[in-house]
Amino acid sequence: MSKKWVYLFDEVKQAEAYAGDSHSDLRTLLGGKGANLVEMTRINVPVPIGFTITTEACNAYLSSGGIFPEKMWEQVQEALRSVEVASGKNFGDRKNPLLVSCRSGAKFSMPGMMDTVLNIGLNDQTAQGMIDLTGDERFVFDAYRRLIQMFGNIVIGISDEVFERKIAEARKRAGVETDAKLTTDDWKSLTSEFKVIFKHHTNHTFSIDPYKQLEMAIKAIFKSWNGKRASDYRNAAGIPHDLGTAVNIVTMVFGNMGDDSATGVAMTRNSSTGENRIEGDYLANAQGEDVVAGIRLTKDISGLQAEMPETYAEFEKIAQRLEYHYREMQDIEFTIEKGKLWILQTRDGKRTAQASVRIAVEMAEEGLITPEEAVMRVTPEQVDFFLHPQFEPDAKAAAKTEGKLLAYGLNVSPGSACGMVAFDADLAEAWSKEEDKHVIMVRPETKPDDVHGMLAAKGILTSRGGRTSHAALVARQFGKPAVVGVSALDIDVNKRQMAVKKEIIKEGDWISIDGTFGEVYAGKLKTTVPDIRDPWLIKLLDWSDGFRRLGVWANADCHSDAERARAYGAEGIGLCRTEHMFFESKRLPYLHKMIMSDLPIERREALDALLPFQREDFAGLFRVMDGLPVITRLIDPPLHEFLPNYDDLVNDLFDLKIRLTHADTLEAVNTLLVQIKNKDLILKQVEKLRESNPMLGMRGVRLGIQIPELTTMQVRAIFEAACMVAKDGVEVYPEVMIPLVSHVNELKVQRELLEEEALKVMKEQGIEIDYKFGTMIEIPRAALTADQLAEYAEFFSFGTNDLTQTTFGISRDDAESSFLVKYMRMEILADNPFATLDRDGVGELMDIAVRKGRAVNPDLECGICGEHGGDPESIRICHQLGLTYVSCSPFRVPVARLAAAQAALLDRKTE
Amino acid sequence: MSKKWVYLFDEVKQAEAYAGDSHSDLRTLLGGKGANLVEMTRINVPVPIGFTITTEACNAYLSSGGIFPEKMWEQVQEALRSVEVASGKNFGDRKNPLLVSCRSGAKFSMPGMMDTVLNIGLNDQTAQGMIDLTGDERFVFDAYRRLIQMFGNIVIGISDEVFERKIAEARKRAGVETDAKLTTDDWKSLTSEFKVIFKHHTNHTFSIDPYKQLEMAIKAIFKSWNGKRASDYRNAAGIPHDLGTAVNIVTMVFGNMGDDSATGVAMTRNSSTGENRIEGDYLANAQGEDVVAGIRLTKDISGLQAEMPETYAEFEKIAQRLEYHYREMQDIEFTIEKGKLWILQTRDGKRTAQASVRIAVEMAEEGLITPEEAVMRVTPEQVDFFLHPQFEPDAKAAAKTEGKLLAYGLNVSPGSACGMVAFDADLAEAWSKEEDKHVIMVRPETKPDDVHGMLAAKGILTSRGGRTSHAALVARQFGKPAVVGVSALDIDVNKRQMAVKKEIIKEGDWISIDGTFGEVYAGKLKTTVPDIRDPWLIKLLDWSDGFRRLGVWANADCHSDAERARAYGAEGIGLCRTEHMFFESKRLPYLHKMIMSDLPIERREALDALLPFQREDFAGLFRVMDGLPVITRLIDPPLHEFLPNYDDLVNDLFDLKIRLTHADTLEAVNTLLVQIKNKDLILKQVEKLRESNPMLGMRGVRLGIQIPELTTMQVRAIFEAACMVAKDGVEVYPEVMIPLVSHVNELKVQRELLEEEALKVMKEQGIEIDYKFGTMIEIPRAALTADQLAEYAEFFSFGTNDLTQTTFGISRDDAESSFLVKYMRMEILADNPFATLDRDGVGELMDIAVRKGRAVNPDLECGICGEHGGDPESIRICHQLGLTYVSCSPFRVPVARLAAAQAALLDRKTE
Repeated sequence: MSKKWVYLFDEVKQAEAYAGDSHSDLRTLLGGKGANLVEMTRINVPVPIGFTITTEACNAYLSSGGIFPEKMWEQVQEALRSVEVASGKNFGDRKNPLLVSCRSGAKFSMPGMMDTVLNIGLNDQTAQGMIDLTGDERFVFDAYRRLIQMFGNIVIGISDEVFERKIAEARKRAGVETDAKLTTDDWKSLTSEFKVIFKHHTNHTFSIDPYKQLEMAIKAIFKSWNGKRASDYRNAAGIPHDLGTAVNIVTMVFGNMGDDSATGVAMTRNSSTGENRIEGDYLANAQGEDVVAGIRLTKDISGLQAEMPETYAEFEKIAQRLEYHYREMQDIEFTIEKGKLWILQTRDGKRTAQASVRIAVEMAEEGLITPEEAVMRVTPEQVDFFLHPQFEPDAKAAAKTEGKLLAYGLNVSPGSACGMVAFDADLAEAWSKEEDKHVIMVRPETKPDDVHGMLAAKGILTSRGGRTSHAALVARQFGKPAVVGVSALDIDVNKRQMAVKKEIIKEGDWISIDGTFGEVYAGKLKTTVPDIRDPWLIKLLDWSDGFRRLGVWANADCHSDAERARAYGAEGIGLCRTEHMFFESKRLPYLHKMIMSDLPIERREALDALLPFQREDFAGLFRVMDGLPVITRLIDPPLHEFLPNYDDLVNDLFDLKIRLTHADTLEAVNTLLVQIKNKDLILKQVEKLRESNPMLGMRGVRLGIQIPELTTMQVRAIFEAACMVAKDGVEVYPEVMIPLVSHVNELKVQRELLEEEALKVMKEQGIEIDYKFGTMIEIPRAALTADQLAEYAEFFSFGTNDLTQTTFGISRDDAESSFLVKYMRMEILADNPFATLDRDGVGELMDIAVRKGRAVNPDLECGICGEHGGDPESIRICHQLGLTYVSCSPFRVPVARLAAAQAALLDRKTE
Repeated sequence: MSKKWVYLFDEVKQAEAYAGDSHSDLRTLLGGKGANLVEMTRINVPVPIGFTITTEACNAYLSSGGIFPEKMWEQVQEALRSVEVASGKNFGDRKNPLLVSCRSGAKFSMPGMMDTVLNIGLNDQTAQGMIDLTGDERFVFDAYRRLIQMFGNIVIGISDEVFERKIAEARKRAGVETDAKLTTDDWKSLTSEFKVIFKHHTNHTFSIDPYKQLEMAIKAIFKSWNGKRASDYRNAAGIPHDLGTAVNIVTMVFGNMGDDSATGVAMTRNSSTGENRIEGDYLANAQGEDVVAGIRLTKDISGLQAEMPETYAEFEKIAQRLEYHYREMQDIEFTIEKGKLWILQTRDGKRTAQASVRIAVEMAEEGLITPEEAVMRVTPEQVDFFLHPQFEPDAKAAAKTEGKLLAYGLNVSPGSACGMVAFDADLAEAWSKEEDKHVIMVRPETKPDDVHGMLAAKGILTSRGGRTSHAALVARQFGKPAVVGVSALDIDVNKRQMAVKKEIIKEGDWISIDGTFGEVYAGKLKTTVPDIRDPWLIKLLDWSDGFRRLGVWANADCHSDAERARAYGAEGIGLCRTEHMFFESKRLPYLHKMIMSDLPIERREALDALLPFQREDFAGLFRVMDGLPVITRLIDPPLHEFLPNYDDLVNDLFDLKIRLTHADTLEAVNTLLVQIKNKDLILKQVEKLRESNPMLGMRGVRLGIQIPELTTMQVRAIFEAACMVAKDGVEVYPEVMIPLVSHVNELKVQRELLEEEALKVMKEQGIEIDYKFGTMIEIPRAALTADQLAEYAEFFSFGTNDLTQTTFGISRDDAESSFLVKYMRMEILADNPFATLDRDGVGELMDIAVRKGRAVNPDLECGICGEHGGDPESIRICHQLGLTYVSCSPFRVPVARLAAAQAALLDRKTE
């Protein structure tokens, strides 16, 4: 017996239940489309009858050099006879002709290479038969010319343009704009013209034998598998080249055969809101293409219910069956031919983030899927959507069409914002206070000085910097939409303007930025504001919390941050950067004094003045986090970050000295001399603190060891605050963290200092506070010697930003705008390691640290507080490494809750 | 039977053979000194008879709160009786009194806390007996007052100054300068005065009972174990506090009892040259102290041979026996009392580096020790001594006394040098060409531009920079003595002078620097030049080569380096830094052109011009290393290092602009404008290349990927050179190394580039070259993913300088002059990790890399080319990690050969 090359749709009753699974053998054999048609037939959905020629037939054909495998053609003819019997029509019959479509369908969807020939079976004789049958000459000639056009293009290889040019000429002759306006005669004469073209290119008249049409169409589709277009696509998409394509032969059905005919598309649920109600559009007496092309005004699907109540009821039942069967919201194409409903295609429906959440939750509540599945179906990015305003899709599309998209940059902080351009922080703040003035703060790059302006602004835009630049970090921390590293912007702060694409944008002009996609637009774009209090989202995150094993904490520097974090579900503060508190204008002078003084006594004075501020900050945090742990990290950045920039000082001095050469009064000279002397003093200190590689320099614990008074002051502030609020009945769990540790002795020295001071404060206050002492792991050596560190630490917190820098030997400030970009383009790196944890390098160190640390101290609390703590893929790695929690910016907390649950569920699956 | 607390010296015949071993039980029980006296007695060396009270007795005494343990005192008396019998003298006997010394002696030597009381047994009666016996009243009263003084000080606690003041008064009264000039009467009346002092402090007359003297002396010594001085010393030296001290009671012998008496010290071999001949000094009719104190002119030991031939012959025999017994050159103290030779002490003799080598080698040749032991006895530092000139120790001592030691700095490159101060490279070079002008090049810090001056100079001195600063690296590479980071120097290059200790040193003044000890002297110091061709050293290194398992390669950038490396025994070039070749004046302009041009074609042109230079360099290296492997590393440093310094450019521009404001002719203005424009162009490029952390920036393989033409040019130069010399019959084994790799894909990309170009060159040249491709491991991620790298690398070379920086998160440029110093002072770090490999962190990464790499490729060649490759302790670690070779500067090659052998021998021991 020869091999089976052809399967009727209704022949595979015992196939695998769910052909949507890309691993199924059925898909491999019949292609995705074929398997889908088989599956719908199997569950008694009215699909136009037809059959599929297998991918194996394709491969056999291709490897034989162009010969159908043995008996294939006989099997096709046999299948066609079955279709004739079932349909009551006959292929090539002049009275009641059977028309079929011939469509390619590979295992994996390959959009743009799916060749299709419609209306096979038409020739001069059968066309006349169709006219007799339908009485619609226009329809038949349109169908006939379409067969010649598609056959000519796909089977023969005549450029489609040749045909389209003829149609365009016809439109011009007729003085009409659209094909819909062309008359029967127009189509009739076009059909003749197309026949001439065909003859011209092939030296043959258009084949009148329908079987010849079918044979050639099948061969053409088989061959198209090895065409350049398909091959390139497979290379790009990583699809194997040896799969082959199947060919589907399907009876043509027509929705334009009178008022009892129609065609349409429908979703089983609302794709914008997720509401469980069919939505869709249809057209009576029309073809499917007309609905999609938007040439005619479609009607809402509810109209169908009125016009054809029975058919609609049938459709409704089928739609529900399909959704139930595929356990997903479906996007269904249908045609009604003379009152008979046909389902042409069904697939999972696209939807908005809101709809995605609601559908997943409601389906679980309906019992269609499990809560676990619901959690797996929503992407973390969809959760993120709820946290930020977004431009309306239509508004964006329009803006792009109008050329208002000015430039692309790095999408470092999601959400959209419109505002007036302000080039400095003070102006940004001032304008923001005025009514109706929204501001986008625009800088070449931002510095700590700029933070007040950034907080006042609606969004942040910079021309330099990378994913972990100051601008990006601050923006994410405060949930401000931001686009950075937009190199196309030429910002001239002095002229208060920027140039982009030869356009000049002045301070005060409105722009719009999309931090989700990294886009910069001119003007104002219409915006929608989603709501985090969406009941379905809350339900979904509740379920997530039940599934996840990772804790989700937040990075928060002040009580308002902490409030947000708690509202979003954070279970602790994983990182409070105490130095951020210093940047406030009331405090900075004291810090300057501390830095500028060489005398310990002066230093002490300055620190004493800072103490009450810090204590107040900590007390605020502790109050908000009542009952939850709060990790405060002692001062980390190099001191020069608190002083003016070296280059600026040099420039200022230069200016002053130039002015000195022009000064013409003694008074002016004296004033300038004093100014120069003062600047010079600061410059000297900045010079002293200057380092060739500040990232690897005097910061973190090195600072605490150099200036122990600084550690003592901060520890005192923490413990005084803790005692204070504990007396008010607040449950405080302070954890003190030492940054940049590379050697166990650093930890020992600081621990001694801390324990002494903490004890002193607790004695003074007459109250005991339960606290933990721990260390950042952000230097490779710390990870490698984690067993030693664990002797002196109750917790580890992975600072993966710095750990990535040191493990890779990459300075993020420099690299993200230079060679990292090239590396990703060259695919040397698959991902930006500052966005997604590098499993093989950084992850390996984390693994070593967790294992060594827990071997010494099984109760060791291990968390991550780097930017990666909010990245879903990184969260998966953290779960696998067995961390206790991830800590991320408050705005990423809901995202992390979902991602952590997904990691746990994926883990279950692989177990 | 009660416990045995007291051992006569001749009672321990069956003790362990070698009491020199600090782990022996005998030393624990009897202390080092006691065990030594026992040992000498055991091998029939004439030691004054005596006995030892055990450390156990001391501990029992201390823990009982001050009571001799049961029967101890009885055992002491019994032992004393044995001594009386043996000596024929009696303790306290007025006719023939026995005098003894009472000396503490712990298990480990504790210099400065060893309490001793001499002449115990003297009182008014026995003193008279001594006078009757010796007829030397002066000698007896001197001995008597010494007993009162020592007893008063050590047993009673009277300040020694009180006694010494009296002696000083006596000298003044007598009008003499030294004690030796004091008469019998002087000593007689001093004895009386001392008795008064004693009475005054104790309310007791000086004890007349010798037994009481002895008892109190023993108790005082016991107690001294817990004294503050001893306790502090033990804390510092890490000696346990529960060991206790033994007490040795030894018969007094006197070398000042007439012309048949003498005293002296002698070494069994020459301590300067190592020659196998006794050397020493003695004094006839004198006390041991007189020899040591240098009050009287000592005679050469050869005189003793003439004066007392028999006794000398006996001494010679004993000296040989001691050397043979201890298998080491001995430093022996002896006394001849009335023709009878007594050995008072023997210990291993101190010696110079040359002597150390010769003695070890000759002892092995004599069969006294094995060649393995000879290799273990010489320290690597002693080998290093042969490679550099050194100041004569006397000259240094004198200079220090005269206050010529100006400052200390980091001893980054060993050896000494004298020269005239030159503050810039051109002057240094110019002066060095003149006859009799030697130069010390002095700079705040050095840059690649300075290299020609550094090469011309005799030594290098900088006020800034650390152990791996440019100055240090270059100095070590070329064997120039160097002291860097001398912060006490205030260098004013503009004024051509430097201030130190309020002294001004002008350009042209002579200074001397000691790179072995990090010292800076004013003026010229006398210097000796050792010879590496020392036959004993050659022999020792030959033996070493036979023992070591590690290969010893050298870092060499040019053929003269390579020649030296080969002469010193290098077995390959582990690192040729190709970029060093670019700094030559003929080549730098092309490199500048390459950097400044943004057009690939211009870049290509510049590179083409550099190619012949590089080829020539490589050919030279290959020729010298005929038959041995040569690893060339492709360009590594960031490009900005080849351009002028940013700050300098800004300053220059500032100056030019200031001059512009003063320019008064049109011509001057135009000239300045052109200059400003040119400087500005360079500044722009420097600004473009500027990075916030250049150490982690655009360098190494990142550069090779950014500018593939650079890689291609270098590869072409290597292979053209290799083909060229191979045709001349030279055996070439080129290995091409990629720096700063952190991801396997970097290696893949560069390997493809290399293979293509290499193949092209070999085809052009019509010859096949056997080569290897490999990578530096200098980034933690490279070590962590070594299994992946090993798929594309035939060798790894650990760049431990950078690996230490990234593993610790430390910038060496900044840290070595700042917090690292503090860390070592605070003992947070035991060693400078840039000098000695950090085993726990960096070593752990190396271990991971070697294991992972060899798991994939068992033949993987693993070496080290960082500075650590020449450090003995680090070489030990490299041996333990199973590296293939260490590579170090040519000057460290002999050191490394010895250190590698010692590592292997130590390994055998622990097996």
